[in-house]
Amino acid sequence: MDKKSIGIGLIGCGIIGGQVARVLKERADTLATEVGCPVELRKIKVIPPDLERPLVGELGRELFTTDDEEFFAAPGIDVVAEAMGGETPAFDYVKRALAAGKQAVTSNKELIAKRGAELMAVAREHNVTLRYEASVGGGIPLISRFQYDLVANKITGVYAIINGTTNYILTRMAAEGVDFAAALKKAQELGYAEANPENDIEGIDATYKLAILSSLAFHARVGPDDIYREGISRLSNRDFQYAQELGFAIKLLAIAKENQGQIEARVHPVFIPADALLAKVDGVYNAVLVEGDLVDKVLFFGQGAGPLATSSAVVADIVGAAIEVTHGNQAQSGWRLEGGKVVKPMSEVVTRYYLRLSIEDQPGALAQIAKVFGSHEISISSAIQKLTDPVVQTAEIVIVTHDAVERAVQAALDQLQHLPVVREISNFVRVEAED
Amino acid sequence: MDKKSIGIGLIGCGIIGGQVARVLKERADTLATEVGCPVELRKIKVIPPDLERPLVGELGRELFTTDDEEFFAAPGIDVVAEAMGGETPAFDYVKRALAAGKQAVTSNKELIAKRGAELMAVAREHNVTLRYEASVGGGIPLISRFQYDLVANKITGVYAIINGTTNYILTRMAAEGVDFAAALKKAQELGYAEANPENDIEGIDATYKLAILSSLAFHARVGPDDIYREGISRLSNRDFQYAQELGFAIKLLAIAKENQGQIEARVHPVFIPADALLAKVDGVYNAVLVEGDLVDKVLFFGQGAGPLATSSAVVADIVGAAIEVTHGNQAQSGWRLEGGKVVKPMSEVVTRYYLRLSIEDQPGALAQIAKVFGSHEISISSAIQKLTDPVVQTAEIVIVTHDAVERAVQAALDQLQHLPVVREISNFVRVEAED
Repeated sequence: MDKKSIGIGLIGCGIIGGQVARVLKERADTLATEVGCPVELRKIKVIPPDLERPLVGELGRELFTTDDEEFFAAPGIDVVAEAMGGETPAFDYVKRALAAGKQAVTSNKELIAKRGAELMAVAREHNVTLRYEASVGGGIPLISRFQYDLVANKITGVYAIINGTTNYILTRMAAEGVDFAAALKKAQELGYAEANPENDIEGIDATYKLAILSSLAFHARVGPDDIYREGISRLSNRDFQYAQELGFAIKLLAIAKENQGQIEARVHPVFIPADALLAKVDGVYNAVLVEGDLVDKVLFFGQGAGPLATSSAVVADIVGAAIEVTHGNQAQSGWRLEGGKVVKPMSEVVTRYYLRLSIEDQPGALAQIAKVFGSHEISISSAIQKLTDPVVQTAEIVIVTHDAVERAVQAALDQLQHLPVVREISNFVRVEAED
Repeated sequence: MDKKSIGIGLIGCGIIGGQVARVLKERADTLATEVGCPVELRKIKVIPPDLERPLVGELGRELFTTDDEEFFAAPGIDVVAEAMGGETPAFDYVKRALAAGKQAVTSNKELIAKRGAELMAVAREHNVTLRYEASVGGGIPLISRFQYDLVANKITGVYAIINGTTNYILTRMAAEGVDFAAALKKAQELGYAEANPENDIEGIDATYKLAILSSLAFHARVGPDDIYREGISRLSNRDFQYAQELGFAIKLLAIAKENQGQIEARVHPVFIPADALLAKVDGVYNAVLVEGDLVDKVLFFGQGAGPLATSSAVVADIVGAAIEVTHGNQAQSGWRLEGGKVVKPMSEVVTRYYLRLSIEDQPGALAQIAKVFGSHEISISSAIQKLTDPVVQTAEIVIVTHDAVERAVQAALDQLQHLPVVREISNFVRVEAED
């Protein structure tokens, strides 16, 4: 099919959408060479406040509309790129574009994590493709890795730092010994965290991204609600101190594994060995480590957010979509769901644990605690006891376990809480070795 | 175009080819699902000794031939995968396959580095694609990153550890203080270095890979002969000691940069800051850091060699080729050469330098040396002087310069060599900061 040019419709012209529009305009020559014909931005759907942006003047007011019907009736639109974010109404827009036989591109992780399978079914039905490279890891090429490069592998694990806000906060806490609140405040000042940071610090954003990566990696439908989740707000300076003493770094990891049809998917703070590659990923950077049976380990690192990096991925998808329009279907659409796979309940997950307890500093206290672990068949790898307050005779004890099942650890914690010598269970964090 | 099945012809059935054949057989179901129809290995061209391999019995003798004409006359071959290595006769085989209108896949870095442009022209002429993901970085997805994901970026730099043998040797030298010969011997015992290791330790293998990455990144023809090259054999323990003291790691880096149409491409040992991500890439692992104007930095890490990892990339390309056969051209073939770019001569390269000299331990010696640098407009960042042998009054001096042009440094070294107080220029290594 020969085309004289490819027309793009853009939905949303905020920070990401605006940058996509700029790249499409400024790199028109390069993109035309790659696609084989010009790629033209023909209509932009915005909400009224966005009409005040300087970009409207730069690109010309006639390109913009606030009206859905006008947008979808615009002539010569082959590819619709959605950069507005959120589940609704983005879902309706993307579905409408696909149902009208247009290629669709989105940077919307929430949309793909929650409703991706539905949209891909619509895409298949209309023989078009939904592309979403920018939805995970910003400018880091990830999605097409699973769809193309790793296709011959059986993927066994994904270990990812996929939220820049939390990684920035944890990096500052580790490097400067500041507490969570101070690190969050600094992140907000620098624009790395939002005024309402819940979505990031509670790990919600990371579950969206892990849902997408897991669905791709394991050929099974993994939704955000299937993923166990803990945020980073309960980490304290003492945990970082002990982590360093024990040779660990603390990261918010998104972890997914498959073993014999059972999928494990969870987002929570993790102790990882300080010499692990992921432990070196600092600041707002993201990294995704993938384990496959042929490739062993591959790791992808880069900026997981920001308008420039995200626009790189969105425009790459627009080029891919444009090539599909000019040269025909590329047949790698959607998640190849295999069926029969189940998500393992968190209670059955096996990992190591770091625990920090406040106890009465009296003879036999440690023995009583060790006995509780023993009765739940949890074996202890190391224990450090420190006298922290001689006046009230309180000691702090840090325990790292060997592999144990979550259910047993939770039962042990429950029992410990009722032990008279235990004053407080200050924290517990899971420990991972990456493989 | 609907096909009932896709036929594969394989050239070479050594360690890599054999593993590719195994994956095609063992994962036939997965590959058929990805492609939409079965992918069948129909003929394997080998040299007579390979007929003795156990694989011949496993796959059936009738699949194998030692005869070129029989191979090319075999019916139903849509994709030819070459895994024999070397420039000749691999070039003729791949060219013949492309000229016959077949899709071609190769893992052959030497072939692509030296004759890739020629083969891509043949591919274009016959409306097929030459795929070569496995030629650089084994199982690490790299080639298609440039062709697809980074397409909207202007690439400014590539910094790569792309030879596992040398990285293994340097890692051992740094970690254990063993000398080059001992580390090489160990690498040979473990099968990480060949009996004749020249290709790896002299950086030849790395220049092939950098030629391919540079051509892709900068849209210009960069051949292995355009690349300045130094191996690792002249690095000594003392260099590693000083590197550690100064806060550096030593790596064999393949570096390519573009600035205003001038391309810089070189392979040589490099001092890099110990906290740089590339400094953490140890053992036989590879990593490629790419700088683009939109993505900033992205890094790809993994196993750069080995039959399993390499087969992952070859089979991914075979799937891509099969999809092209069933669904039509994907239009991302070959290097998009822009023309007008030149490779900068090594003498004009600007970087920092580490120098180690043996000098006479006498008053004013350092001043004389500093004067030589000054006369060539090279400014010194740090100098360490150590008394190494009081009997013969020889001191060792280590100098790290600020940015200087290679021509000036070479001229200074030449002059230093004739200075009476200089007993020996023991070594010099360039220093890079990654960006």
